[in-house]
Order: sequence, then structure tokens, then C-alpha cells
Amino acid sequence: MEVRGETGRMVRVGDYLIERLRAHGVDHIFGVPGDFVLGFMKDIENSPLSLVTTCDEQGAGFAADAYARLRGLGAVCVTYGVGGLKVTNTTGQAYAEESPVLVISGAPSFSERRSYPLLHHKVRTYDTQYKVFQHLTAASAVIDEPEDALREIDRVLGAVLRLKRPGYLELPRDIVDREVPRVPPLPVPSDASDPRTLEAALAEATAWIASARQPVIVLGVELSRFDLIEPAMRFVERSGIPTTVALLDKSAIDERHPSFIGVYAGAMGRPEVQEYVEGSDCLIQLGTLPTDLNLGVYTAHLDPARCIDATRNRLAVGLHTYEQVGLADFVEGLARADLPRRPSGDHPRPPGAKGRTSGSPDDAITVAALFRRLGTFLTDDLIVLADPGDALFAAIDLPVYEARDFLAPAFYASLGFAVPAAIGAQLARPNDRPLVLVGDGAFQMTGMELSTCARYGLDPIVIVLNNGGYTTERLILDGAFNDIQRWDYSKVPEVIGAGRAHRVETADDLDRALADARRRDGQFVLLDVRLDTLDVSPALRRLGESLQQAATPVPAGNE
Amino acid sequence: MEVRGETGRMVRVGDYLIERLRAHGVDHIFGVPGDFVLGFMKDIENSPLSLVTTCDEQGAGFAADAYARLRGLGAVCVTYGVGGLKVTNTTGQAYAEESPVLVISGAPSFSERRSYPLLHHKVRTYDTQYKVFQHLTAASAVIDEPEDALREIDRVLGAVLRLKRPGYLELPRDIVDREVPRVPPLPVPSDASDPRTLEAALAEATAWIASARQPVIVLGVELSRFDLIEPAMRFVERSGIPTTVALLDKSAIDERHPSFIGVYAGAMGRPEVQEYVEGSDCLIQLGTLPTDLNLGVYTAHLDPARCIDATRNRLAVGLHTYEQVGLADFVEGLARADLPRRPSGDHPRPPGAKGRTSGSPDDAITVAALFRRLGTFLTDDLIVLADPGDALFAAIDLPVYEARDFLAPAFYASLGFAVPAAIGAQLARPNDRPLVLVGDGAFQMTGMELSTCARYGLDPIVIVLNNGGYTTERLILDGAFNDIQRWDYSKVPEVIGAGRAHRVETADDLDRALADARRRDGQFVLLDVRLDTLDVSPALRRLGESLQQAATPVPAGNE
Repeated sequence: MEVRGETGRMVRVGDYLIERLRAHGVDHIFGVPGDFVLGFMKDIENSPLSLVTTCDEQGAGFAADAYARLRGLGAVCVTYGVGGLKVTNTTGQAYAEESPVLVISGAPSFSERRSYPLLHHKVRTYDTQYKVFQHLTAASAVIDEPEDALREIDRVLGAVLRLKRPGYLELPRDIVDREVPRVPPLPVPSDASDPRTLEAALAEATAWIASARQPVIVLGVELSRFDLIEPAMRFVERSGIPTTVALLDKSAIDERHPSFIGVYAGAMGRPEVQEYVEGSDCLIQLGTLPTDLNLGVYTAHLDPARCIDATRNRLAVGLHTYEQVGLADFVEGLARADLPRRPSGDHPRPPGAKGRTSGSPDDAITVAALFRRLGTFLTDDLIVLADPGDALFAAIDLPVYEARDFLAPAFYASLGFAVPAAIGAQLARPNDRPLVLVGDGAFQMTGMELSTCARYGLDPIVIVLNNGGYTTERLILDGAFNDIQRWDYSKVPEVIGAGRAHRVETADDLDRALADARRRDGQFVLLDVRLDTLDVSPALRRLGESLQQAATPVPAGNE
Repeated sequence: MEVRGETGRMVRVGDYLIERLRAHGVDHIFGVPGDFVLGFMKDIENSPLSLVTTCDEQGAGFAADAYARLRGLGAVCVTYGVGGLKVTNTTGQAYAEESPVLVISGAPSFSERRSYPLLHHKVRTYDTQYKVFQHLTAASAVIDEPEDALREIDRVLGAVLRLKRPGYLELPRDIVDREVPRVPPLPVPSDASDPRTLEAALAEATAWIASARQPVIVLGVELSRFDLIEPAMRFVERSGIPTTVALLDKSAIDERHPSFIGVYAGAMGRPEVQEYVEGSDCLIQLGTLPTDLNLGVYTAHLDPARCIDATRNRLAVGLHTYEQVGLADFVEGLARADLPRRPSGDHPRPPGAKGRTSGSPDDAITVAALFRRLGTFLTDDLIVLADPGDALFAAIDLPVYEARDFLAPAFYASLGFAVPAAIGAQLARPNDRPLVLVGDGAFQMTGMELSTCARYGLDPIVIVLNNGGYTTERLILDGAFNDIQRWDYSKVPEVIGAGRAHRVETADDLDRALADARRRDGQFVLLDVRLDTLDVSPALRRLGESLQQAATPVPAGNE
């Protein structure tokens, strides 16, 4: 099937944008319609791309973010003002967590802007939205001149793909239909390393690694973003060095791998992992972000003098840095390096999923029992999506080693991500099935996007941790503000007119519900898991205590 | 009851902010908790203010906007990043429609910002959120120095109150607890008129009005915002001049008033109103905004040479303008002017509510029949809240003359306003009851905020226009993107665990449902009104045709 205008000397601006998205692996665009974007949405509908419309723009933004993490590019398409400003938060998250999402916003034409001072959806000036998104994106443009349109699309898309950060394209509604002379697409720019500096850095790093007593590799989120998992795993395989990940980066390795020692999260993680990692004399961090949650809310003790720290922005070997060394070249270099293969030693190993269930079938369900049981439920066609809160923290100890992937906003931590993200994840990976872990507070924000799952025949399994409020916050400072209305989540399918649901109060309920969830009939399955208000995972209890200390006002103030 | 720290020489920064909000009539703050704002939320909980927590920040933002429109000041309190960026759209709406909402955001302390490069909820730099809100507010501040804290709070609050636009205060979490020397609050600045210019403008305006053949007064939204309804109505009473309002301004006059001729909306409104207004030789516009929807999507024909146009920014009498004339002084001047009282003439009159029902009880319900019936249902304890779409356009012809008030985002037009706005409206006016008119598309965005109504014992009547999609957009350009999942809205109470609901398919169903809605037991009542997909109000049909013409790309492009 051919996109209109794909051949020939002239091309419509709308068609060119669709063409470029397809060329970079995009098959779905997420959005909510509005009059300033209807023309472009019709273009999408007439193209091989699928347009997926959600209940609210927030849902489209999160879906596009998840899609981008799995496909290498995602797109969200909204109308001006009332649409664009509803995806500022999801775009902020994509910026923080390096997710390549293109925001496409319809807008009034320039002749309308000139003629009418107060057109609907206008905030302050006609470029208010553009100015807002300049703070939230790596590149942005208002396509105001047809002759520059193709180059501006290439420029913004190029920045998104190179930097793995969101971009913003504003399409005045008259521009979409304009035919302009076709020019060859600009290649995506790349960051070249300086060859001599690269060689020197690799020489120093490999000599250090070879002589280290207890080296440890930390696989970071940028490896997934920059498509470097394969060379990084070659380095792990060839060297035999024990390997860990942080929470944000949990899907960087198959957790069954013999070199895997478990998730590292400072004092939040398992003590033997913390001890092993922090006892390393050569910690090789590849694409990790030093976020507070990655560092166990700053309970981590990582001495830079004992670290090799390679990110897309910076390479430090001990206490000095090398400039102009690309992350890809450095990781490739390590994978090819002539290192002695270390024997499989006595490093920590993840607990695994077997034999972890206990207690009687009538026992009231607890967070600990739920996650133990989920550990044995996971199969390798599942993508786990965790919302911030205990859904995420409990997952530190969840042996998702059977899972295909694990997505969570473990740095930016915006509640309400996981349900709409399941839409993006399943469309990005049609052979996989999302398993959503979500707190009740977060579900009340965006959970009704299950309606969108119903509309498009998606069948996530959704585990709602129903404990009547924001439990993470209760551990920091409690008040009535942490309570929420107790919904009967098991009735959600009756509102939406699709899906199945189970109320889970005991271990036995859970077994039955999971058995039913396993059966696939094209509908979502929701488990309303009734938990005690203060029942939390061990990891969350450790985290809450850390945050409580951090929330104490700093005595010296801020002068 | 006394606020902590209200007396004495020292005051905590958090307490001072609460004090100032109370002094300006705020009793409720809307928000969603998050760790960077928990300390201030605890302050609110310990104060005479009530903290109202919603399902999602979007709901809190809309609730605060409605509260601000009715009380003269509203406040929304959120956490950093994931909270603040979720209220950019509601703040944009408050800016566009001149609603005085203060956004209060918790934030990391400055010592945290200095120590930690990547704290959760951070987007790009620590001032990203502040920079974003600078584009969306009339005044903004990060309270970074305790010694400036009180003055900065006064400055931002003063701008909000003077300009009736949103403001932004960012509270690093350590600052809330700081005690600082108390200083007397700064008075809210006011715009003084130049006395001679004011006198000259009034002399010219009154002479013109006195000699006009067919003067017409247009009451605008700024009269409500700047508390000028009372003097404006004195002007209407004393002069006897026929009076109209635009859709955005519908609540500016009691529609039973003998001088009221009906809503003016260009070609969207009733033809006799359009003819009468556009035939005026002296159209006295007081605080109206020339928005596209106020002008019937630019189908209005208003000749500036025949208009007196007074707004907060500008006074034009015919083709010249007077500088430094405040709207308040000008309206007061007209109210006191020595004008002959005109006899009650043969101007158009609104159709009224009586005798407008027809047809048989088993007739399928239609938009027209629904709104005819609602016309007779309205009582003067109801506040009508209309969401954009046909819920709003049908209200042009709805004789809400019995209603206490009418709120709708009839300029910015953000879908999803009305349900959360009902929370703000009922708390602002505890003796009134909200009647919400909302499309199904908009309900899927924010309708589950009925949960918040349940939590706080609010009992709005919610009319869902269930027609399977974005009908307004179907009239412009249809596609699968305008369809939504058909929910069974009558099941919403079962999920929330509160409220009553009725499915309405016939005229008789409607009568029974409205009779039940009249009964108050502290719970919301939802009417799921099943309409044909393409059944629209006459006003919407006229509007859709106008927008369709506007959506045609401008042939000359934008060069």
C-alpha cells in the first residue's frame, strides 16, 4: 500500500510527515481529535498508519511514551491549546526519561491568527503553546512556511531520534494540504567519537577491568533507548562479569541470565546486592541515570573513584573524563575488548520464583503474597507495566525474569502512566500482552482508558492495588488528603461494556482470578485486589523511611 | 477559630499564604497530594480552610476555576512536575477566560536542588515548571528567599485579584515552615482613571446614547469578573435600554428581566436577536470579549463606528479611544448618568419556558426535547454548568432565566470542564445545586470526578448527552476518530459506590428521571440520555456549518 504523494516531485506536507514517521517504524499515532487537527487526522486515517483515539489527551501522551520506549519512536497528535496543554506532563516525563515522543499539534492558520484576535483554544498569544513546549522538548517548530516544512520536520524528528527526547511540531491547519517540492530526507545526525580519544578511553577502561578484583556491570536505561542492549550483552557474556540493573532499567537484562545478581537500589534493594555492588573496585555503569530512585533515594554509596560511568553525555573513568566519546562506540569497544573470561563466581543471585508461595488459600491477600504469586504467574509473552507507588517498589523484588519487558516511569514518577501505557505497549508489540500493576489512586486518574483497550481489542491484565489511598505518601506524612473514595473496580467492565473483572480478597481468589486472566478472549481482565490500608511491600517501607527523613525541612534553610 | 501564627510579630510562610487566601474569601483549596507539597497540605488541614482532593489534578484545576468565577478567587494546590504540569491546561483556560486562580505548587528545596542532579519529578532544569507557568499566568514567583516570601505572595496574589488572571506560586518544601517577621499585607493595586478623560468619555457616550434611535446594551463577562453586575444593572434599569448577553456571559443578567432580548450569538443565535442587535445605531458593549464563539464564529456584523466598547483594557467610543479610563469608573458613570428612561418598546423577548413541551411520552428523546424540558425544570437554586459541544450550544436557546448562574468555558472551550467545575461551584455556593450539561466525549475525560462529589457529599444533577462521540466535530469533518466507546453511564454509581443514575430513552423516562433528581439525599444524580448520533440542536447545526467553512484551507496560504 502506498502513501498518497509518496512518489513524484511534489508532496503534501501532511503526507510527508506521515511518510517520515513510517520510515522510522511508527505504525500507530495516539490522540484526541479537535477542530484544528481534523484535517491531519483525516490524512492519518487515509494512510497506512492507525490512529488510536483515547478518552483524554493524557492517556494518548502516556500511550505514545510507552510505544516510543518499545519502538524507538512514538507520536501523539492533538488539537491546539485544550489538546496540547493536556500533554505537557506526559511530554515532561518523556523528556526526563529519554523517551522519543513526537508531539504533533494542530493549530490555527496564520491568516486566522492575523484576522481574529480571540479564536477559541487561544491562551495568551498565538505562540503560547509553542513557548511552553520549548521548555519540554529537545526541538520544536511551528511549520509556518511551506517552503521550510520538510526541512523543519526533518530537523525536529532528527533531534528526537538522536537525543531520545520529545519534540514538538505545530501544524497550522492550512499547511497540511500544501504541496511542496520533494527533497531527500535529511539523515538523522549522529554523534561521532574522536578516534584517538575513544582508543585511549577503551585502553584505560579495559586495563582496569582486567585487573579488578570484583568488577560489576550496571546496565542502564540508555542502553534500551539507544538500541545498545545487544553489544552490552555481548560484553556481559564475553567477560562473565556479574551484572545488575537499577529499577528504571529493569528490562535491560533477562533476569534468568547466570551473570545477573538482582536489582540494585541502594538500601531499598536486597542487602546482599547493595553490599556486592558497593564493594566493587570497578563498577562499570553503562547508560545509567543517577536519579534519586535509581540510587535508593540517595542511600547508595557509589564512589566515583571506583566507577567507570558511560552515558550519552559523558564518559568518566575514575575521577577524570574523556570528551567526544559516544556511548555506542564505547559499549561496542568493550564488547570487542580482549578481556579474560571470569569464572562463574559466588556473586548474589535473584531469589527466583519457585517455591515462594505459602500460607492457606483463605488467608487475606497481602502485597507480599500478591507479588510472590505474580512471580510464578509471569510468562515470557507478558510486558510488565508498573505505575509509581508500591506497584513499582514491590516490583524490585518481583522476579520478572520470565517477562519480555518492564516499563515504569521510575524517575519522573507520574501517577496514572501504566493503564494508558498498556495501550501503547500492546500496539507496539502485538504478540505480547501487558500486565499492569497500578495503585488505586493512579487508577482513578487514568484507569478508565481501559475503554480505549476495549475499543481496539486489547487485552491487558490489570492488577489494581486497592488500599484506599496514596500509601506511599502515608509513610511520609499522613492526613485525610491521602484518602480516596473506595471504588468497586470490579464494576468497571459494566460501565465500559467490555472486559472481565474479579474481586480478590484471599490467596484463593487470586489463584482463580489469575487462572481466568490467563484465558484470552480479546478483552481486558481487571483484578480488584483488596488490601489493608497500611499493608506495604518491604521495599516501600524502606523507601518511606528514607523519604520521611528527606521531607524533614533542612535546618540550615536555603540561604 | 484562629490561624496559627495570625497574631504576633513572626509568621510562618505557609500560614501567611493561608491567611491571605482567607482574607480574600477563599474557604476551599483543590488539589492532589504529592511528597513535595505534603507539608503545606498539612498546614491547610490544620487551618480553617478545607482541602478538597480530586481524582486527578485536571479535576482540581477545573474545580478551582469554577470556584474562582463564583467567589472572586480560587486556588489549586499540587506537587512539583507531575502535579504542576497536569494543570497547565486548566490554567490556560483561566488565563483566556479571566478567571482568578492561584496555582500553588510544592517543589524541592534549594538545598536539594543543589545537592541532587536528578530528583524525581524533575523535567529538564529545576525551573522548567516555573518557566512554563510564566507563559500561562499574569504573575509568578518561586519563593526562594524567606525574607521576600510575604512580599512575593502579596505581589502574585495582587496581580491575580487585579487582573483576574491566574498566578503561580512555587513553594520549595523547606520554605513553608520558615518563620519570618510579619509585615502589613500590600493592598491590591487598582487601575485609577484619569478624571478629566473619564469625564470627557462619559459626556460623549451619554450624549450619543441619549440621542440614539435604537441603543442596545451588551453585558459582558468582565462585569461578573470585576464585580460590576450591580452598577451595570442600575444602568439597565434606569435607562430602560434593551439588553443582551453573549454565550460566555450568559449569567450576567436575570433572563426574566423585562429589558432582556435574548442571547446574541451572530448567526448562531435567534435571527430576531441578531437583526435587532446588528440594527442598533449605538451598541453599548460593557466588558465583552470579541471571541469567535461570542461573535457566532464571526457571523456577527458589528460596525465599530456604531459601538461603545468598554473593556478592562480599552474604551472605544465609535472610532476613537480614550486612554486611562477604568471599566469600573465608566460603568459607574453610566449608572449615574442623567439619561431619559426609555419606554418598554417592541424589542425581541426570549421565548420563555412555558408551553414548550409537546409530543407523546413514548417519543424517543431528542436534544431539542431534552432542552425544552430542562427549560421548565430549572429553579432558582440551580447553577447550570455546560461543557463545550452541543451541551453548550443547545444552551443558547435554553431559557435559564430561572437559574442562579451559568458557567461555561465558551471561549477557551476545553472539554471536560463541567463535572469537576460542579465540585468547585457547589462548594463556592453551598446553598445552590449544580446542573451539569456534558457530552459523552467530555464525560469520558473527567466524569469520574463524580467520585469527588461522593467524597464530599455534593449532589449535582449530571445530564450526559450520550451520542457515541464528538458530534460537534462530525459536522466539520467526520471519521472514525470522532467515535468513542459507548459506556453505560448509568452504571457509574456502582463503580463509585454512591450516586443514583437513570437511563433516559424517551420523553417519559426523562420526566421520571428529573422527578427523582429533584429529590435531594446528598448524592449526585446522573441521567444517561441516549441520543441519536447525529441529533443536534439547531444552534450546533448552524455552528457546524460555519466552522466547516472556516476549516476550508485558505486558498492564498499564509505567505
